[in-house]
Amino acid sequence: MHTETLIHAKWIIPVEPHEVVLENHSLAIADNKIKAILPTAQAREEIDAEHIVELLNHALIPGLVNTHTHAAMSLFRGLADDLPLMTWLNDHIWPAEHKWVHEEFVADGTRLAIAEMLKSGTTCFNDMYFFPDITARVAQQIGMRSSVGLIVTDFPTAWADNAEHYIHKAVELHDALRNEPLISTCFAPHAPYTVSDQPLKQLVTLANELDVPIHMHIHETQDEINGSIEQYKKRPLERLKDLGLLSPSLIGVHMTQWTDDEMSHFARSNAHVVHCPESNLKLASGFCPVKQLQDHGINVALGTDGAASNNDLDMLGEMRTAALLAKGVAQDASALPAAQALRMATLNGAIALGLQEHIGTLEVGKEADVVAIDLGHINTLPVFNPLSHIVYAAGREQVSDVWIAGKRQIANGKHTTVDVQRIQTNCQQWQAKLSANQLSSD
Amino acid sequence: MHTETLIHAKWIIPVEPHEVVLENHSLAIADNKIKAILPTAQAREEIDAEHIVELLNHALIPGLVNTHTHAAMSLFRGLADDLPLMTWLNDHIWPAEHKWVHEEFVADGTRLAIAEMLKSGTTCFNDMYFFPDITARVAQQIGMRSSVGLIVTDFPTAWADNAEHYIHKAVELHDALRNEPLISTCFAPHAPYTVSDQPLKQLVTLANELDVPIHMHIHETQDEINGSIEQYKKRPLERLKDLGLLSPSLIGVHMTQWTDDEMSHFARSNAHVVHCPESNLKLASGFCPVKQLQDHGINVALGTDGAASNNDLDMLGEMRTAALLAKGVAQDASALPAAQALRMATLNGAIALGLQEHIGTLEVGKEADVVAIDLGHINTLPVFNPLSHIVYAAGREQVSDVWIAGKRQIANGKHTTVDVQRIQTNCQQWQAKLSANQLSSD
Repeated sequence: MHTETLIHAKWIIPVEPHEVVLENHSLAIADNKIKAILPTAQAREEIDAEHIVELLNHALIPGLVNTHTHAAMSLFRGLADDLPLMTWLNDHIWPAEHKWVHEEFVADGTRLAIAEMLKSGTTCFNDMYFFPDITARVAQQIGMRSSVGLIVTDFPTAWADNAEHYIHKAVELHDALRNEPLISTCFAPHAPYTVSDQPLKQLVTLANELDVPIHMHIHETQDEINGSIEQYKKRPLERLKDLGLLSPSLIGVHMTQWTDDEMSHFARSNAHVVHCPESNLKLASGFCPVKQLQDHGINVALGTDGAASNNDLDMLGEMRTAALLAKGVAQDASALPAAQALRMATLNGAIALGLQEHIGTLEVGKEADVVAIDLGHINTLPVFNPLSHIVYAAGREQVSDVWIAGKRQIANGKHTTVDVQRIQTNCQQWQAKLSANQLSSD
Repeated sequence: MHTETLIHAKWIIPVEPHEVVLENHSLAIADNKIKAILPTAQAREEIDAEHIVELLNHALIPGLVNTHTHAAMSLFRGLADDLPLMTWLNDHIWPAEHKWVHEEFVADGTRLAIAEMLKSGTTCFNDMYFFPDITARVAQQIGMRSSVGLIVTDFPTAWADNAEHYIHKAVELHDALRNEPLISTCFAPHAPYTVSDQPLKQLVTLANELDVPIHMHIHETQDEINGSIEQYKKRPLERLKDLGLLSPSLIGVHMTQWTDDEMSHFARSNAHVVHCPESNLKLASGFCPVKQLQDHGINVALGTDGAASNNDLDMLGEMRTAALLAKGVAQDASALPAAQALRMATLNGAIALGLQEHIGTLEVGKEADVVAIDLGHINTLPVFNPLSHIVYAAGREQVSDVWIAGKRQIANGKHTTVDVQRIQTNCQQWQAKLSANQLSSD
């Protein structure tokens, strides 16, 4: 058998079947896809390849799926910290966005974010931000897989004037991107408190027609619940249910607030949750009850949120925080064990995005989105269980290689398609501009 | 002025004064100590040095103080996960220790731990384990600063036969180490549930006589409280108070369980808490109420615990988890802000160990325990506030240089005194031995 790339790895952790760790196995890639997974001894005999990669202290895992980002906001990383959500938004982020968010900002911020994500093993991100056309273009140029959020709010921004205008641009962009191989789209109404009933109803219709998921911040904080009760006389989730949003198309991000009834309804609707543990902690938004959700059979994916409230886009770290925090919150050390945490960071994200036929596991026939993690570092020695180390001990710096649709994006820890130095210089320019502005507005 | 080493840094964060960030400053080292901190422009004119180190994208911080470790247990990293404390101890860790813990194990495990700690910016660790003489010797050989735990329990181990024997060896070792420049000691009675009244009373007397702190796991879980009420008809802290342990010499580790009265008493006693957030989460031990403790004026230091329940010894990561978790637990996004988290990981540890005259801040006259963190990585760009980035965004891989008592232990990300390859090989040998044993006992 002839193939393009053949990777010999110490371990392969395919995620499906669950908890399986294959030792001394190899993975063959051709035509962007996984062609074979087999014992290395057999692979060395039977397969010849154009590129052979020897990763003899490494584990291969499916590329990580960051199911909630605001990529361009990486340029606001560390702009304002140690503040609650609404102060952070009203006094810092929204004024900064009002002043700075335009096409160049989104292009440069997205490029920075993708560079960071690739380096730490993320191969697909589900974004929500203004100028999603730019996000899509930058991701495409680099070769990053993305689910681009077709953003909708009631409020005017540099991207659109009002809900109708946002929706018009959303449908237009969906259409323009429909045949791009690495790009999918989600409708992305920002949150219940920023989008009114009419546009939400319209999005339900469009989502059904076009078979596109709806990606939305929901029940992030108790304040959001209180505001909704005041304005609509119901909790946000109830309102969304009444508007027809509660369906398998819904990707509800954060979801720290639940009644028992809401959890049952949500489970029956087959909607998805994206858990963002570090952002929830940092903004003191509340604890998402991950174990309870999983016990209800709800699909829980994982996201970092934007780097302005995290302050990184490191899914390995996020997976670790998720696994640790779930135990603390459930008061149960067996909650969210390592294999389940890895599944959350890969397959569950793919399922939420409707991409599970293509990505999320290492299985023959799927797209070759593959990440290699070097477990030979002193940080992860000795190795009794590589799955445990990937969740509880390995750091982003141990990601050695990353393939997306078979293309090697990171090789031996170095970017192959991103000009890191150009990004560093560009960030310093933005830093100077934004700092000057901060000083002048103090 | 002539000096041995002169470091030109983009930023110096001395920790004392609080929240201060000095830009374009330099730090001069001679005779193991910090000789000067001054603007770089002035330093370039006035100081000549044998070694000049240019760190133009870097922040200098005081060396991190890991105030609770079981260093040798790094060889058990990932041996058993996703289990609650008592199952983990009774069914996995204690049997493994019974079989494996001897001098060679402690030497090799400690060497692994120190290599990991140095690389991630820790310059002092406060340890508790069997064969503390070996821990001290290995730390000394490498040039790592350590506070060695003079362990005491009621139970026989390869190190000692009974409490009396432990105490005898403790006093002997204290005496042997008293003039070692990089070593201090703590009495280390394991926990209220493993040490009976008589040896605890004896330790109080000895601690007073010898002016040595007492380092002890206390109130780690609700189970511990229940057990104590059953056995002693009082909560552990009340029992320790009655035995005379509640004093400025006491370093209480974990402390997830508190009554209001306990907190007030603890505060008045000027005893110290070591917070181990990741271990507490992983074992679902409970949440340490850090903000409340700090509001009571209690000195809270930070520790990783052993790598068997963490599963790393990364104090940068621990600081981040502490800062994030404190906000979630206090439901207050301003709880444990970045500057306070860094103080906890440096000066507060030094205070708990009674070493604040020597380490914990970057101040002229203190020992030169200095860590450089490269903030020019894409993970930490742009930089609006280096203090925020060190806590919320920088990873251990961004630690570029580490000095302990003026000796450069890490230079450009590489160990200077530790043979990493030898440690890797040695770990693989332990991995084979321990794995074989696990399989045979299954």
